[in-house]
Amino acid sequence: MDKSTAGGLFAGWAFIVLAIVLGGVGFIPYVDIPSVIIVIGGTIAVTAGQFEVSDLKRMTSAMKVAMKSVSFEQLPELVEKIIFYATEIKKHGVMHVEQKVLEENNPFFKEAFQLLVDGIKPDVLVPLLETKLEHMEKRHNTMIGMFGNIGGTAGSMGMIGTLVGLVAMLANLSDPASVGPAMAVALLTTLYGALIGTLFAGVMESKLTQKHSLEVASCEVIINGASMIAAEESIGNIKMRLNAALVEVIE
Amino acid sequence: MDKSTAGGLFAGWAFIVLAIVLGGVGFIPYVDIPSVIIVIGGTIAVTAGQFEVSDLKRMTSAMKVAMKSVSFEQLPELVEKIIFYATEIKKHGVMHVEQKVLEENNPFFKEAFQLLVDGIKPDVLVPLLETKLEHMEKRHNTMIGMFGNIGGTAGSMGMIGTLVGLVAMLANLSDPASVGPAMAVALLTTLYGALIGTLFAGVMESKLTQKHSLEVASCEVIINGASMIAAEESIGNIKMRLNAALVEVIE
Amino acid sequence: MDKSTAGGLFAGWAFIVLAIVLGGVGFIPYVDIPSVIIVIGGTIAVTAGQFEVSDLKRMTSAMKVAMKSVSFEQLPELVEKIIFYATEIKKHGVMHVEQKVLEENNPFFKEAFQLLVDGIKPDVLVPLLETKLEHMEKRHNTMIGMFGNIGGTAGSMGMIGTLVGLVAMLANLSDPASVGPAMAVALLTTLYGALIGTLFAGVMESKLTQKHSLEVASCEVIINGASMIAAEESIGNIKMRLNAALVEVIE
Amino acid sequence: MDKSTAGGLFAGWAFIVLAIVLGGVGFIPYVDIPSVIIVIGGTIAVTAGQFEVSDLKRMTSAMKVAMKSVSFEQLPELVEKIIFYATEIKKHGVMHVEQKVLEENNPFFKEAFQLLVDGIKPDVLVPLLETKLEHMEKRHNTMIGMFGNIGGTAGSMGMIGTLVGLVAMLANLSDPASVGPAMAVALLTTLYGALIGTLFAGVMESKLTQKHSLEVASCEVIINGASMIAAEESIGNIKMRLNAALVEVIE
Amino acid sequence: MDKSTAGGLFAGWAFIVLAIVLGGVGFIPYVDIPSVIIVIGGTIAVTAGQFEVSDLKRMTSAMKVAMKSVSFEQLPELVEKIIFYATEIKKHGVMHVEQKVLEENNPFFKEAFQLLVDGIKPDVLVPLLETKLEHMEKRHNTMIGMFGNIGGTAGSMGMIGTLVGLVAMLANLSDPASVGPAMAVALLTTLYGALIGTLFAGVMESKLTQKHSLEVASCEVIINGASMIAAEESIGNIKMRLNAALVEVIE
Repeated sequence: MDKSTAGGLFAGWAFIVLAIVLGGVGFIPYVDIPSVIIVIGGTIAVTAGQFEVSDLKRMTSAMKVAMKSVSFEQLPELVEKIIFYATEIKKHGVMHVEQKVLEENNPFFKEAFQLLVDGIKPDVLVPLLETKLEHMEKRHNTMIGMFGNIGGTAGSMGMIGTLVGLVAMLANLSDPASVGPAMAVALLTTLYGALIGTLFAGVMESKLTQKHSLEVASCEVIINGASMIAAEESIGNIKMRLNAALVEVIE
Repeated sequence: MDKSTAGGLFAGWAFIVLAIVLGGVGFIPYVDIPSVIIVIGGTIAVTAGQFEVSDLKRMTSAMKVAMKSVSFEQLPELVEKIIFYATEIKKHGVMHVEQKVLEENNPFFKEAFQLLVDGIKPDVLVPLLETKLEHMEKRHNTMIGMFGNIGGTAGSMGMIGTLVGLVAMLANLSDPASVGPAMAVALLTTLYGALIGTLFAGVMESKLTQKHSLEVASCEVIINGASMIAAEESIGNIKMRLNAALVEVIE
Repeated sequence: MDKSTAGGLFAGWAFIVLAIVLGGVGFIPYVDIPSVIIVIGGTIAVTAGQFEVSDLKRMTSAMKVAMKSVSFEQLPELVEKIIFYATEIKKHGVMHVEQKVLEENNPFFKEAFQLLVDGIKPDVLVPLLETKLEHMEKRHNTMIGMFGNIGGTAGSMGMIGTLVGLVAMLANLSDPASVGPAMAVALLTTLYGALIGTLFAGVMESKLTQKHSLEVASCEVIINGASMIAAEESIGNIKMRLNAALVEVIE
Repeated sequence: MDKSTAGGLFAGWAFIVLAIVLGGVGFIPYVDIPSVIIVIGGTIAVTAGQFEVSDLKRMTSAMKVAMKSVSFEQLPELVEKIIFYATEIKKHGVMHVEQKVLEENNPFFKEAFQLLVDGIKPDVLVPLLETKLEHMEKRHNTMIGMFGNIGGTAGSMGMIGTLVGLVAMLANLSDPASVGPAMAVALLTTLYGALIGTLFAGVMESKLTQKHSLEVASCEVIINGASMIAAEESIGNIKMRLNAALVEVIE
Repeated sequence: MDKSTAGGLFAGWAFIVLAIVLGGVGFIPYVDIPSVIIVIGGTIAVTAGQFEVSDLKRMTSAMKVAMKSVSFEQLPELVEKIIFYATEIKKHGVMHVEQKVLEENNPFFKEAFQLLVDGIKPDVLVPLLETKLEHMEKRHNTMIGMFGNIGGTAGSMGMIGTLVGLVAMLANLSDPASVGPAMAVALLTTLYGALIGTLFAGVMESKLTQKHSLEVASCEVIINGASMIAAEESIGNIKMRLNAALVEVIE
């Protein structure tokens, strides 16, 4: 569980609940089932229309990624692990690590080092891993873009709902007493749209972007390390080059 | 038929209808023929003014593309097919596949492999196919941009219509009873503009973008495969390189 | 005359006139000479302040370009013409086409082929033509950006005019009967600004962008063709390479 | 004095004055010293907070640049001058022009040709001049960005001022007669913010951008010319290459 | 202490206080604890949800960076120092500067020159330092983006708060006297959001961007200088190349 995503979302919604409670009119004026249906339903419908079925199916798994804490190693541990593998290979040959590679659970690391064990040359290894990384980036960016689109669509559906409500209210001004509540209901779709955009889609989009860039940085270190091992560079060189990704000193 | 486009659009409009029904004032306040004419007519007029006739003529075919499910193979089948062709050519020579290529219906695949059958060298084949891909991308981006422009124009025409309506209403405030309905009618153009932008142009633009990037990815795999076959690389290498585009493992 | 620009603009303004007529209060509430002066005058003044005199002078000629139908050949005719020239040069030598080149009216084609006739080597010809193309692109982008700026400025001047009008109205609320008409007049500048942005600057900007990208594509084909002729490539190769720009098959 | 900047700004403000005069309520409702202080003071404060002191000090000199007409040569004269120098150097040697170079007042031209006179080799000359150009671009872009930021900040400070005013007005609704004037005052900060953004920062930003791109184009021609002279290319070649930047024929 | 950041922020807030004082209704209508909680709390919650814990922890240190005056040398002093080191190394060998390097407090300079002292070859040194710079840029951009996001989120939370307040007010219109104050309170969240966006997040974002680009420029000069020393170029060349970054002449 990614504590900051879960905690941030929970606290965000709690502050909204607090705002409503402090408003003193209770929850009832804020709940309008038709408005909920129109904004959420409309956003789902438009999103379904905008994306391919295969991408829509990956949406829940993308949400799980945003909610889970990162499963792969942080950069410092990763660099250490690569240096460990490089030393083992230098000492005992590439076959010695075969079993250990199979037990790794970072999939990109596993694939890169299985190719190393298979004896792939650096000039084949690097473009191959870069192709894999590139396709991963495309898939991630589709999902990040999907949450961005959801935020925009929820805002638009909210505005459309409010306009529909305003027209209904204005067409029926005979009873002045009903103007206030009707206007309140009309504004609810805008509120729902803003809430979905800020407290769901925006958080997902940004968190996935952060996790994506961490993963890309980690994949780049793996490609860099694997290619240096394949090129049989010295352990000293590999250490120096990989540690450059860890510049903690400068701020 | 692309079920997600059709279903999404249908459901989206159904939610709007639902919103109106639940509003309780019936459909009549939402229908104003002059407003429809101004927003739709104005958007068509501006779009015609913004684009070349040759591009305007391609608009309906672009809409068909967005509504149809993708006709060409998914990446995994495509990779498999290219490997099959590569193996056939390795075994029986390039002439052996000539007939099969003619029967292919993925046009980019067909063109690439016909060039292969014609014995084009890799250093001519790749820039040729890349030129074709590049021109395809330009044409697609013109259409994607056209739907983006339509969304923006519909919003502007909606705002213009509302301003025209507001001025009419304000210039004629003598009858207070007419203010509400007049205001309602004025808001209708904004509503129509937002509906066109969200539930037509936005969906088309995004869906075409998705289909476009799928097609580009598929064309890149074809170029990659055809160039490796032309360069007479080993089947093992071709397999390994093409499969890198299918990284299902990493998420 | 570019029929889609002229027709689109005419139809667009006609729809606005229609909207006003259908509004039932006549044209008088929509005409306010001071508002016209402020929005149009202010937009011209700001645009003059934003651009260099030399660019401002090119504005009317840019508008003529947007209104005229494209004078140079479409890509298919252009490719055909280049292949014709290539064949003539192959058969009868470069001097044979000298007279015909002088009669060409596509200026970029003329310049490129005059350089060919002058016997310039391909390694000098290509960077020379690319420099020309690059400077043409810069000049076109300045004009496209100018119309984009005009749209934004008209919107801002409209908003400023409305604020000026609102302050006048609010400072003088003593006569309630005048509020409506005063408010109507205040809104007119916003309306004028939106009309200029949508039905003038936006159309010009987009149409010039379209024509620009057509011209760039055509110049690139000319550079490509001329460099292949200069390099004395075979007619077959030239045909194949140039035709790649015409991929009509794929959509 | 750059006539279009000065004239545009003067005319723009004159149109605003005209709008106010034509509004018929005089200048008094438009002047509110506290609002002026808040918008201008706040914008200055935020801008000071956003930029480095060294950049803030360059602001007035940037404004002078925007207001002055360009001091260096137009491209055609520049090309002519470079060709003149190239011919002199060809005929009489590089020492012959030493005195003339010292009298040049285009600083980039002077630096480039002093390096030529010093006998720097082209492979050192070009990266050196490009470094200089690159640093000039960075410094210019900081100033252009500063005026962009000022426009945005003025708009935000205007909105903040209006909200402050609205809250004051709403908290004190007891006297209905004061609502109008209070609202008018509240709107003034938005008006001031829009005026600063449109009729000061926007004009400066755009004019500096125009002048910057003219200067970059001129520096690029100088680098190009100087490197060809250093490489001892023929006068004919230098002429042809430099003239390519002057494509007046194509539009 | 960075005087322009501190002074700008202080003056900005002082102008807001002034605006409120001059509004004449005192501070009480501007203070609403629930609104403060909702906007600030909600913004913190959403930001926590959007970023990784490791990045959130760096936020206060990033704010300190924005508030402190730059600790490292300005470009002219830096260039002078590098030339001094280059001369020392030329004269007495690289070991002679070892002790001085250890006493440097610019961390990037120290790292670069320690590598020089260690005798790293230029072809290893440059990519190593560039990797370090690249990772520093990524980390800085994450922080700059975080403050940008905070500004946007504060605006959204302000709008959400206002909508919540409006719904409460409209649902409870029975007492007309309460409409004004209720509306005032509803607007407060929008005001708070705009203040956080303009007078906190916007200033931080822009100041960090400025400091970042200064630091990158300084790191690039260090990389450039160190690589020329490692390549044993002449002091004259080093001087000329480094001084190109200081083009004070051209404006």
